[in-house]
Amino acid sequence: TSHSDEGGGWQDGEYFGSYNTMKLHLEMLQDKPRNTAYFTAIQQNQHRIQDKVVLDVGCGTGILSMSAVKHGKAAKVFAVEASEFAKQTQALIEANGMADSIHVLEGKVESMKLPEQVDLIISEWMGTFLLFEWMIESVILARDRWLKEDGVIWPSHATLYLVPCSAEELYQTKVGFWESVHGFDFSALMPLAKEEFFHTPLYNHVMKTEDCLSLPQKILQLDMKTVTGSELEETTHHFEYTLNKAGTLHGFAAWFQVDFAGFHGDASEPFVFLNTGPDYPLTHWKQTLFMMDSPITVDQGDTLDGTVTIERNKVWRRHLRVNLEYSFTSITTKDIKVFTKLFPIWR
Amino acid sequence: TSHSDEGGGWQDGEYFGSYNTMKLHLEMLQDKPRNTAYFTAIQQNQHRIQDKVVLDVGCGTGILSMSAVKHGKAAKVFAVEASEFAKQTQALIEANGMADSIHVLEGKVESMKLPEQVDLIISEWMGTFLLFEWMIESVILARDRWLKEDGVIWPSHATLYLVPCSAEELYQTKVGFWESVHGFDFSALMPLAKEEFFHTPLYNHVMKTEDCLSLPQKILQLDMKTVTGSELEETTHHFEYTLNKAGTLHGFAAWFQVDFAGFHGDASEPFVFLNTGPDYPLTHWKQTLFMMDSPITVDQGDTLDGTVTIERNKVWRRHLRVNLEYSFTSITTKDIKVFTKLFPIWR
Ligand SMILES: [Ca+2]
Ligand SMILES: [Ca+2]
Repeated sequence: TSHSDEGGGWQDGEYFGSYNTMKLHLEMLQDKPRNTAYFTAIQQNQHRIQDKVVLDVGCGTGILSMSAVKHGKAAKVFAVEASEFAKQTQALIEANGMADSIHVLEGKVESMKLPEQVDLIISEWMGTFLLFEWMIESVILARDRWLKEDGVIWPSHATLYLVPCSAEELYQTKVGFWESVHGFDFSALMPLAKEEFFHTPLYNHVMKTEDCLSLPQKILQLDMKTVTGSELEETTHHFEYTLNKAGTLHGFAAWFQVDFAGFHGDASEPFVFLNTGPDYPLTHWKQTLFMMDSPITVDQGDTLDGTVTIERNKVWRRHLRVNLEYSFTSITTKDIKVFTKLFPIWR
Repeated sequence: TSHSDEGGGWQDGEYFGSYNTMKLHLEMLQDKPRNTAYFTAIQQNQHRIQDKVVLDVGCGTGILSMSAVKHGKAAKVFAVEASEFAKQTQALIEANGMADSIHVLEGKVESMKLPEQVDLIISEWMGTFLLFEWMIESVILARDRWLKEDGVIWPSHATLYLVPCSAEELYQTKVGFWESVHGFDFSALMPLAKEEFFHTPLYNHVMKTEDCLSLPQKILQLDMKTVTGSELEETTHHFEYTLNKAGTLHGFAAWFQVDFAGFHGDASEPFVFLNTGPDYPLTHWKQTLFMMDSPITVDQGDTLDGTVTIERNKVWRRHLRVNLEYSFTSITTKDIKVFTKLFPIWR
């Protein structure tokens, strides 16, 4: 495999030809909340999946396709995988005696010809900050082209959350540390440290619920049955947070929830969901942390009023930029400060 | 900074122009056993360093140079740094009021002209498996060119250790896992997992003393006052290990010790040392693990008889290869099995 950019702005070489194939699969397959959500959704809906035709977009090892057959009793699964790993997937399907029902198709779903429309699309397309990698576009295209009118897409909904938060330990470890290093004054390096560590969001951050300084807000809500690619090119959400405790505001944390509904006539029927926030068991997505350049001391009742804009990169099509612009108002002094920072993920 | 290979086989662009400058300095400066060893050696030898001239090869933030002045009361320090970070070093020296005694010199020590010979060379040149990065060659050259006849070089000695060991948890997490994944047979992926995870040594491994299946052996012993660059191009050590417990042999672990002796007329005088093995507090070097392709069950009294060859890469001059060749003899069955594996670090 190579890291060539054959796909132009799509960086397909970079994306599909990873040097760390097994590492990435391992990470996903060892992510229990992730797998449990998909398996449970399939199992609980077995009576609806039975004898149906399924399309698995970006099937990887084929684990969801196998689950659709074993737990869902699907009649047929088209398992599409763009990377060369598809050859391994085929071997695994055969080793598990499912070659009759699961058809592994190597190639991009965009150029795939299927012999029929499907009843269910399953895909695990979510990346850092939900959208990074922009695999969602392949899923949307597969839906438009191959999903039956009354078909179901899983996940059925995706919601992105953002919350102002504290990250004291991280800040001290990476930036505060330089203030005094073994008795020497290294504070001249603090700007360099901020630039290097906080220029892009931290995608490996693990936060606690008590780090949240307010209730989270939904900054993006997608109905996967209807969302279009062009809607996602640029989205702006206006927020107004009232801080519910005193502390230090270091930045903002983001996570997402995806739902597995859609088969249900009755909307009140409980559905399976996967939430990657701090109130739920840790997943391989962890939380995404946007560190502002300087921490500020805040009081309960202080407010943050502004916008978060998510802008897909026009050249590097799997990348995006997140722009945070807001004014901070102190409830006691009524002082207003304005903050703005643009975070690339990763270009 | 860029990752260009301007230095040819030396990869100086890759080596000196890291994107992770602050991350690397942070890792070193937060490594307490590392810093304590250097500081203690300087402090304990203050009466010998006082009013002397010191050369710090690859000074980084200048922390060792500052320590030589503050704790050692050195008269003058030449702090040589090949990367552009030297500009930051200069700012730090000034901020700490040491610009009169510490002279920051930007450039490679190989092309440096010093106004005088020095009494003491200090350097933290050790990399993964002691030798990786091969910064030792710059230190040897600096010694030959700039150290007084009766001068001292720190570290004064370096010893590399190797021990056969068990790494059960790692093996199960990375390779054993594939045997059965959520009830599916994924064992066809085990060879790929071994190749991806165990092709090169693991340089981030943390082992416990009880993972050792024998006493460690010294496979390389360097007297820094006399060692030459050409001696290090290829070294072979013959080993014979008798396993001191039953268990599973997964491979070999390596770590090093460096000593800070050399000022002492009396060789029995205690000296400071830094040991990166499992019996000592963890350092940022952790341990280096060489995983063989298949674990074998071993008994107390079984023997491993063979060689370890360390061969510097002739093209990529900062890289090396470690070749392990040995026969395993079972004490009970007298069966003999032969094993061999060549590990690149990293090319
Ligand atoms: Ca993903
Ligand atoms: Ca080093």
